[in-house]
Amino acid sequence: MSGSAVPPSRAIFQPLLAAALAEDLGLAGDVTSEAVVPASATLRAEIVARTAGRVAGLTIGTAVFGMLDDGIGVEVRTADGEDAPAGSVLATVSGPARPILTGERTALNLIGRLSGIATATRAAVAAVAGTGARITGTRKTTPGMRALEHYAIRAGGGAGHRVGLFDAILVKDNHLDLAGGITAAVAAARKRAGHLMSIEVEVETLEQLGEALAAGAKIVMLDNMDSPTLRRAVEMTAGRAVLEASGGITPDRLAEVAATGVDVISLGWLTHSAPALDVGLDVS
Amino acid sequence: MSGSAVPPSRAIFQPLLAAALAEDLGLAGDVTSEAVVPASATLRAEIVARTAGRVAGLTIGTAVFGMLDDGIGVEVRTADGEDAPAGSVLATVSGPARPILTGERTALNLIGRLSGIATATRAAVAAVAGTGARITGTRKTTPGMRALEHYAIRAGGGAGHRVGLFDAILVKDNHLDLAGGITAAVAAARKRAGHLMSIEVEVETLEQLGEALAAGAKIVMLDNMDSPTLRRAVEMTAGRAVLEASGGITPDRLAEVAATGVDVISLGWLTHSAPALDVGLDVS
Amino acid sequence: MSGSAVPPSRAIFQPLLAAALAEDLGLAGDVTSEAVVPASATLRAEIVARTAGRVAGLTIGTAVFGMLDDGIGVEVRTADGEDAPAGSVLATVSGPARPILTGERTALNLIGRLSGIATATRAAVAAVAGTGARITGTRKTTPGMRALEHYAIRAGGGAGHRVGLFDAILVKDNHLDLAGGITAAVAAARKRAGHLMSIEVEVETLEQLGEALAAGAKIVMLDNMDSPTLRRAVEMTAGRAVLEASGGITPDRLAEVAATGVDVISLGWLTHSAPALDVGLDVS
Amino acid sequence: MSGSAVPPSRAIFQPLLAAALAEDLGLAGDVTSEAVVPASATLRAEIVARTAGRVAGLTIGTAVFGMLDDGIGVEVRTADGEDAPAGSVLATVSGPARPILTGERTALNLIGRLSGIATATRAAVAAVAGTGARITGTRKTTPGMRALEHYAIRAGGGAGHRVGLFDAILVKDNHLDLAGGITAAVAAARKRAGHLMSIEVEVETLEQLGEALAAGAKIVMLDNMDSPTLRRAVEMTAGRAVLEASGGITPDRLAEVAATGVDVISLGWLTHSAPALDVGLDVS
Amino acid sequence: MSGSAVPPSRAIFQPLLAAALAEDLGLAGDVTSEAVVPASATLRAEIVARTAGRVAGLTIGTAVFGMLDDGIGVEVRTADGEDAPAGSVLATVSGPARPILTGERTALNLIGRLSGIATATRAAVAAVAGTGARITGTRKTTPGMRALEHYAIRAGGGAGHRVGLFDAILVKDNHLDLAGGITAAVAAARKRAGHLMSIEVEVETLEQLGEALAAGAKIVMLDNMDSPTLRRAVEMTAGRAVLEASGGITPDRLAEVAATGVDVISLGWLTHSAPALDVGLDVS
Amino acid sequence: MSGSAVPPSRAIFQPLLAAALAEDLGLAGDVTSEAVVPASATLRAEIVARTAGRVAGLTIGTAVFGMLDDGIGVEVRTADGEDAPAGSVLATVSGPARPILTGERTALNLIGRLSGIATATRAAVAAVAGTGARITGTRKTTPGMRALEHYAIRAGGGAGHRVGLFDAILVKDNHLDLAGGITAAVAAARKRAGHLMSIEVEVETLEQLGEALAAGAKIVMLDNMDSPTLRRAVEMTAGRAVLEASGGITPDRLAEVAATGVDVISLGWLTHSAPALDVGLDVS
Repeated sequence: MSGSAVPPSRAIFQPLLAAALAEDLGLAGDVTSEAVVPASATLRAEIVARTAGRVAGLTIGTAVFGMLDDGIGVEVRTADGEDAPAGSVLATVSGPARPILTGERTALNLIGRLSGIATATRAAVAAVAGTGARITGTRKTTPGMRALEHYAIRAGGGAGHRVGLFDAILVKDNHLDLAGGITAAVAAARKRAGHLMSIEVEVETLEQLGEALAAGAKIVMLDNMDSPTLRRAVEMTAGRAVLEASGGITPDRLAEVAATGVDVISLGWLTHSAPALDVGLDVS
Repeated sequence: MSGSAVPPSRAIFQPLLAAALAEDLGLAGDVTSEAVVPASATLRAEIVARTAGRVAGLTIGTAVFGMLDDGIGVEVRTADGEDAPAGSVLATVSGPARPILTGERTALNLIGRLSGIATATRAAVAAVAGTGARITGTRKTTPGMRALEHYAIRAGGGAGHRVGLFDAILVKDNHLDLAGGITAAVAAARKRAGHLMSIEVEVETLEQLGEALAAGAKIVMLDNMDSPTLRRAVEMTAGRAVLEASGGITPDRLAEVAATGVDVISLGWLTHSAPALDVGLDVS
Repeated sequence: MSGSAVPPSRAIFQPLLAAALAEDLGLAGDVTSEAVVPASATLRAEIVARTAGRVAGLTIGTAVFGMLDDGIGVEVRTADGEDAPAGSVLATVSGPARPILTGERTALNLIGRLSGIATATRAAVAAVAGTGARITGTRKTTPGMRALEHYAIRAGGGAGHRVGLFDAILVKDNHLDLAGGITAAVAAARKRAGHLMSIEVEVETLEQLGEALAAGAKIVMLDNMDSPTLRRAVEMTAGRAVLEASGGITPDRLAEVAATGVDVISLGWLTHSAPALDVGLDVS
Repeated sequence: MSGSAVPPSRAIFQPLLAAALAEDLGLAGDVTSEAVVPASATLRAEIVARTAGRVAGLTIGTAVFGMLDDGIGVEVRTADGEDAPAGSVLATVSGPARPILTGERTALNLIGRLSGIATATRAAVAAVAGTGARITGTRKTTPGMRALEHYAIRAGGGAGHRVGLFDAILVKDNHLDLAGGITAAVAAARKRAGHLMSIEVEVETLEQLGEALAAGAKIVMLDNMDSPTLRRAVEMTAGRAVLEASGGITPDRLAEVAATGVDVISLGWLTHSAPALDVGLDVS
Repeated sequence: MSGSAVPPSRAIFQPLLAAALAEDLGLAGDVTSEAVVPASATLRAEIVARTAGRVAGLTIGTAVFGMLDDGIGVEVRTADGEDAPAGSVLATVSGPARPILTGERTALNLIGRLSGIATATRAAVAAVAGTGARITGTRKTTPGMRALEHYAIRAGGGAGHRVGLFDAILVKDNHLDLAGGITAAVAAARKRAGHLMSIEVEVETLEQLGEALAAGAKIVMLDNMDSPTLRRAVEMTAGRAVLEASGGITPDRLAEVAATGVDVISLGWLTHSAPALDVGLDVS
Repeated sequence: MSGSAVPPSRAIFQPLLAAALAEDLGLAGDVTSEAVVPASATLRAEIVARTAGRVAGLTIGTAVFGMLDDGIGVEVRTADGEDAPAGSVLATVSGPARPILTGERTALNLIGRLSGIATATRAAVAAVAGTGARITGTRKTTPGMRALEHYAIRAGGGAGHRVGLFDAILVKDNHLDLAGGITAAVAAARKRAGHLMSIEVEVETLEQLGEALAAGAKIVMLDNMDSPTLRRAVEMTAGRAVLEASGGITPDRLAEVAATGVDVISLGWLTHSAPALDVGLDVS
């Protein structure tokens, strides 16, 4: 249940951090620290989890300090993908006071948001423990944050889904009519996909599932089905395709859905509605 | 209780939309629509609120379609800052099918997130109705989304706070020790601030409040005080300063806090933890 | 043998065009046209294929004119993915003379390069006609041009490969030692990959192929094998995995390699060494 | 015959490298290395020329590793502008395995492409050895790569041409009609050019050459002339102008063209059609 | 009279420096240094004030050298906000000759421009010494340079004004008609402004001033008034509002305007028309 | 004496305008117009020259309005490069009031600054009328504004100089020592320069001029020479090279310097110290 937690390369997250910093600094910068904190002041502070949760984004969030000043030292105490009890110290930050206070909110916003997603994911993973179902997210992410939010899902123990519109074909209901039905859509998708691009088809009924399997679909999304229907879908498929349950699966339904035997459960609320983890910076 | 809802200039939000689109399209684009939707196909679709809520970001989110194709027509049916019942049509989109399906998720993610914030704000504003207290947000926003998230708060009927570190001085607890106390901090802040820059001081006790008022502070943040203390702070201040209650104010405490007579209540959870409004695109 | 030729969304290629234009215009712009062409001059010109070839990038390349002046009209005569005889008119451009001459080279450079790749691909596709083998490219592309170069391969009748390091797992020789061998690598890759991410393993010997198949690999790259070995690999695999022949496959070997029964042949030279198609702009 | 080989400032090439890396990493990064290579693994590898050629871009290409990880050490063994025999080690790279494998392809693509151009240039320079003719490139470069491709030409022993539309006036055939002929064009160009901006006029006949010389042109491009005509042009000019032969000069014609006495020979194929040099990364 | 001189964070000014460098280097770089300065040459140089003035931008301008080469050492001798006599050494720069000469002009242009503004501001501050008036700038700044130009004003001893359109409400004459007059405008502004956003109203007559004060305006700009009128405005206001004199206040009027008792005097010419300070780089 | 006034392509100036707008709008936008101007209000305004001057940047500056709203109409009344009397209308702007007021300052800042430079240049050109000397600028420009500032010089009747470090070789005093003297520097420069790149050498004495001429220099900068020395330099050169007088040439010395017979006079103060032209927006 521990999360896969290899943070993305700095070549990926530094532009995001730079944009986040620019948003907070504007062109006039941190006028408060400039006005009231002496240039020579130093401090030592701890980033603390005020409530318990699964940590994600600690390396990324604290990298903001190095972008502000080379003299700031950061020591990460809890690895991404680990569970932190309430009150635990996630990292320490020390050095010149002004740039530390300047970067504080940007760092905390990132860590809080990503840890919130990881914490929600971890709870979902726990709820399906003992079944073969994997938890994953969707493309219902915050604009500009998808890479980091998908990473937070992995830190929470979840699996990956499409990164965007570009890395897999996912034929949804709105496509099907335009494509001339499931069989035609699967054929068209195969023609476009190279040998490394996966194809998934969304179905809403068992009849559609039958058509998709007959068309040779290897991955099928079962949209908004109740648990008995999901169970019949699993039986009907009999291992011929990977089955993903999706659509309106609330936390209280997770165990039941997982018990139907589906392979993957995808949850939009992990990214669009999970509350942030409460993290703070305490000057010691 | 209706929200102030003048969307930001397109010069501001178009770069954000472009980044959000780039994230979803990558370099290979929407391979599904390319593969299964005929180039000549057209469609007409409705953006629908699946649950009731306060709308925000409709003009902004639907602008994504014009960035993809000049032939897409958008008709906004519900203005930002209005309340939409469940099932209501917020906007219609019509034109070539491929680019509409390509832009769908980016548009919905924006509208869903901003409307979620507006909806949460509207509930908070309703909870304090009849008092003089204004609801506002904080800098605990999603990295890269602050401008739009603060706009969503206004669409929900809330007021503005600092946009960033640059447009007001806000002396917080971590600054005070380094600054040599409240009196010194207020003096230093005044020296830096021009005649248009506001100065706010955060206090945690009534004693500190007294010191702040004596130092001439005109705006004071009352951090994490219980309601009786807030009430005494209001009495003690007697109109000499604007008072902002902040820190850990949950929805159920809102009415009580507002009743103490504070002028402003700031809520981090409006932006860091409000769930998205459920919006979808239905092809008609 | 006609190419799949849906050009990428303008949201993808416009930033590339803007960078290409900026490179040619610098900050002082087209001083020649400014100096010697009257502001009021207009012209009508044809983009012509000086030698025969498969066309790619025509919509993209000519989009540069609209970025320079709203008054320039472009009429595309040959669709991407079609074969153009020598001397044929690919498109016409008409309007104010200065901006047309300013954009000429940027447009031609793009069309020439992409059509050169499409032309080379088309020849490779023709060479394997009648076999089941598909032609594809690699990541050996020009820095900054991968999306467009992969598109040109599709316009030439080829198929897609990985877009980058992010959309599929491809375990190569340099990974294998570090991963502890094929079996361990396949297991590790499965743990990381979500249900939509494909996994391919590169092998250099039939023994390695056996280990990969035993580990359950579904896609295997056969690196630098001669045709008899490829044939034995096909027999040994017996349909259990998709087989990609790769590494040093020159044009003259294509038919022979395809005849071994491999599913995919990937060719780096389509992008790193194909000559540009000779295209020019003739003022009529 | 050794090449001028001062690499451009990092302020110039780092943005190009960052864009190239971003293209390969996307937002999800190098999922293969993340999945199968242990975080603690290190390696030592050699960048090797698999065939003989003139090296260019080694400093630039290997700079990609420092952008990924501060712990990677690079030792360049062959300077840009030098000739490398087949199998020779151009550079060594050592440090943490993951980021080295992540940067491998981006580095090799750059080095391979630039060295391919340098190698083609070197061959052209060799072909005209003993004459006074200098070899140069054109603006027929890969979009986004002109600065580096022109640098590769210099590393191959070639000379510079215009960098873009902005740094010299070059009146071509399409300009001449609009400008009212050669004499008018030269006069207009002189009026616009400051004292540091060169003016070149393209002519297609000896009659035009005569007009250009009479108009005082100091640099003339002789477009698509056969060798006898070029020879007569040289005689007719008698040192009054620098003469550049251009247009359709294939490798086999180079010696002959140079022997006519022209000062400069410009070759588009150095950049639009030269094959890449085959370079690889061998883990030792 | 010494200036407030905390330079903005490098996160703010580095993108500006990068753009300035890119403008001077283009894509071909510093061809002169490359051509005539040996790669191994080193130098030691001094940045010298050729005329006396108030220094600003020294840390920022010299940061350009570190962006070009890690081996360049910079020692700042005069802090921003200090007065430098003619001929004094502001900083020393030492290290590899090529990148120092490459960065010279970019560094000097920044230091010269910002010090010119600081010097003009300092003179204005001196002219009003002994009165309570503060000198400030306006939004009449050089496009792209506002943050640094406002910083230079502070280094000259001046105060801040609005940074942009976003951080304060300033109702000017062109707004008033559209808003329905002063009283309506003040009410509308209050509705939009949060508790930290200041509101200023511009008036042109004493009658308008009376209306503004009656409407509760706390900050009023007195536009283009002569000194007797300003004096009456001060009397009429009697401390109820901060008064800013603005519009056509030439250096020779400064003392007289300040003597009227206004709180703030804003001067557009500090940024749009102050001559640069003459600074140079002397190789020692 | 009228100026060359072909404005740069919008592909060049739009990014500069976008940056300037972003600086003024920040992320919260024009809060004043949003607050006090009704959404439906329209206006018609005139851009007026408050003092007489040479106009530059009118097309560029007013392009800002189209970036804010498609409904704004702009009519340019005075072409760049023309002289405008005090009070004359340069352009009219009409349409929705809010975006016009939002763009006002950005447009005026650009027009004022560029027209200020054009006006100063025009005066300098007038001062040398009747001589053969051309007036030009230098690289002492505002960071980020060089392209537009050099354009303003041309609009003022001046000529071009180097655009940056990349488009010509200019060997200055600091290079000479490192290069081993003038003769060596000229030789090294020739080796690097292609046939279109000009080479200029700076000299401070007549002896150096002699050495430069002997080395074959075709363009020589005479640095900081008094008029008698300049005259002797002209005689000594006798037409063998273009001579540029540079360094400390104040307006009152212009006629005298021009009379010495130099070909070019370059003036740093045109860009680093010319006051802006006073332009305003009057709502009619």
